[in-house]
Amino acid sequence: MEDITKIFFDLLMMFAAAKIMGEIFERIKQPSVIGEILAGMLLGPYIFGLIHPSQAETFHVYKVLAEIGVIILLFTTGLHIRVDDLLRVGRTSFMVAVLGVIFPFFFGYLFTLTAEHNTIEAMFIGAAMVATSVGITARVFADLGILDSQVAKVILGAAVIDDILGLLVLAVVTGLGKGNISYVKITLVTLEAAGFIFFLIIIGKRLIYKVAPTFNFVKTRNGPFVLAVLFCLGLSAVASYIDLAAIVGAFMAGMVLAELNIEFKLSSRFESLYDFLVPFFFVVMGIQVDLSVFIKFNLLGAALILTLFAILGKLLGCGLGAFGLGWKEASVVGVGMVPRGEVGMIVASIGLGMGAISSNLYSIVIFMVIVTTLLTPPILAKMIAKKFVRKKQKEKQEEIPVDL
Amino acid sequence: MEDITKIFFDLLMMFAAAKIMGEIFERIKQPSVIGEILAGMLLGPYIFGLIHPSQAETFHVYKVLAEIGVIILLFTTGLHIRVDDLLRVGRTSFMVAVLGVIFPFFFGYLFTLTAEHNTIEAMFIGAAMVATSVGITARVFADLGILDSQVAKVILGAAVIDDILGLLVLAVVTGLGKGNISYVKITLVTLEAAGFIFFLIIIGKRLIYKVAPTFNFVKTRNGPFVLAVLFCLGLSAVASYIDLAAIVGAFMAGMVLAELNIEFKLSSRFESLYDFLVPFFFVVMGIQVDLSVFIKFNLLGAALILTLFAILGKLLGCGLGAFGLGWKEASVVGVGMVPRGEVGMIVASIGLGMGAISSNLYSIVIFMVIVTTLLTPPILAKMIAKKFVRKKQKEKQEEIPVDL
Repeated sequence: MEDITKIFFDLLMMFAAAKIMGEIFERIKQPSVIGEILAGMLLGPYIFGLIHPSQAETFHVYKVLAEIGVIILLFTTGLHIRVDDLLRVGRTSFMVAVLGVIFPFFFGYLFTLTAEHNTIEAMFIGAAMVATSVGITARVFADLGILDSQVAKVILGAAVIDDILGLLVLAVVTGLGKGNISYVKITLVTLEAAGFIFFLIIIGKRLIYKVAPTFNFVKTRNGPFVLAVLFCLGLSAVASYIDLAAIVGAFMAGMVLAELNIEFKLSSRFESLYDFLVPFFFVVMGIQVDLSVFIKFNLLGAALILTLFAILGKLLGCGLGAFGLGWKEASVVGVGMVPRGEVGMIVASIGLGMGAISSNLYSIVIFMVIVTTLLTPPILAKMIAKKFVRKKQKEKQEEIPVDL
Repeated sequence: MEDITKIFFDLLMMFAAAKIMGEIFERIKQPSVIGEILAGMLLGPYIFGLIHPSQAETFHVYKVLAEIGVIILLFTTGLHIRVDDLLRVGRTSFMVAVLGVIFPFFFGYLFTLTAEHNTIEAMFIGAAMVATSVGITARVFADLGILDSQVAKVILGAAVIDDILGLLVLAVVTGLGKGNISYVKITLVTLEAAGFIFFLIIIGKRLIYKVAPTFNFVKTRNGPFVLAVLFCLGLSAVASYIDLAAIVGAFMAGMVLAELNIEFKLSSRFESLYDFLVPFFFVVMGIQVDLSVFIKFNLLGAALILTLFAILGKLLGCGLGAFGLGWKEASVVGVGMVPRGEVGMIVASIGLGMGAISSNLYSIVIFMVIVTTLLTPPILAKMIAKKFVRKKQKEKQEEIPVDL
């Protein structure tokens, strides 16, 4: 392997930049995740130009590391949410997800039509507005140590449903873009997704208690950790295979194992893996951000308007869906659902690749994704700080048993 | 990323196969590392054909994962060996390394000349006989929980010196193969390597005590782990950059940090990362093994003889070097230095690529590497079991603080 020296230097730079920026953001009392994304932007081609996504062979490796990182992130997020807890907030999550898809879709759709683009373009922009980046919000909650709160559960549940709805919207829109849309396929994807999730929710909990005693029979060192990794990788692979996002599988795996989290100290066993791999997800996300969008001044107006619609869409839709929780909680849910991430970028790039949307519209979507992603964490942190700050400190200590 | 589903299934298969085979080997009281290599052979192109090294794009990713895995392995190995401990065994390690290079080199050289090949071929085969695969032995010692023993320290110290000598031999032989050998370059490589290691040994310990207090000022979660990862990645990158193997840098990083291992619980913090990543190194090693060598019957005789020489070379050379430790310890050192790994394969493949050795000689070297690698762990385990078995059990418990 000729390029292994380069790979080691790149890994060193990414990890060091992420941790240094994360440390700075911790010290100015902001979620370290923003620091990690900014670290990626600094390393990327538009600022210091130290790591280029165009160097396909090495960058492919970093994308896989990032993908494993986001799997570990969603898995450990799931570990904090027991199925019963989720079912308790299930109706609210469902409403939040559905309204949080409808509002942004139509906002994006109408915005694009008004700007004199055609229906297909409008549908694509609508679809790109839909999917919440659960990674960002989960990470902010984890940084603040409030993954166990009701609001976190509503949001994370909604984000999972939201991912599935986003997937359906993408399937429909892609079908329309290609000119042929099969209702059979849409129905199949829906049934598959629903089947996967309901099977795990209903069977998972019963099965896990039957399987749990075998955890103690494993001779391999760190047995519970190894079995948990296998379950996580397994469900991620299956979810990816049936065209769901792999992160949905990882999240479900974590949620099923949440029942055993305390008994087998699973989340503390995953801590180092989390601290090593998760930063690569956010740094790689930052590296891939196309900052040239910000200097295309003729697009800036339109980009700002679409971003405003993206924010309002989730604020109104999700806030409405969570209204039963009370005004304050509903607004946290609304803000928590704002960040769009890789899914929005993927939808836009599929549209661009198919020739269904123009490169200007593509740039505008990227702008919207960056701004919603960077704007949400500090606002969310501020809104939550007042309520949860004491609980946060207590939990942070619990998270690091090796320090005690 | 189109192939992400395939990558998840591959990772799942590799991890599952490694852990299942490892578990089986634990139960038949053999080092789990053999199980992991065999798992790779099973998955590879010659048995079940589930993962092919020829699928360059995905396999490249697994090789990088493996490379990070072996870095973590050598780093955690280093964590158990303090500089003072190594200096105490330094003279013995040095003798073991030097004699353990001279004997196998001349055995390989004479074997090849006797078989009527030319001098260049003989030099290459000699060079391929030199470098011990420290990964295998370190892993066996870790599996048995005796990394802190004197024998382990002698072997690991010798293996590091051995790597550097192997590198020099390779540099010389490659120069001869190309027809031009620069003594200036050889001297430069030697000085660079020696400088890197002596600098770390002499300065490292003093510096680390000055730096240690800052460990407590880091706000980032799991701070000591993060700083240790940075140091490990940093020295690996530097070692790789100055044409030393990256694992030498990782080992030195671990050894410098060994001073702080207990205070900051470093080795238990690295446990999950180790249990997740290290298996990929051995599985990938297994996948790359060319089993077709075993069915080329006309080569089998020559292959067996070379393997015998490879074993005798290290047994005699290293045993002689360690004779001061007493007969039993010297024989453990001799056996512990027997396994050749990726370095032998690399030397042979460079020779093949340059047209300096024939494909038959290449196959014979691969055979020798496989047999010495698979033969050593069970023999070593048996030799050590009588002496250390009680200590092993005690240490194994200490290794898993989360279980207490």
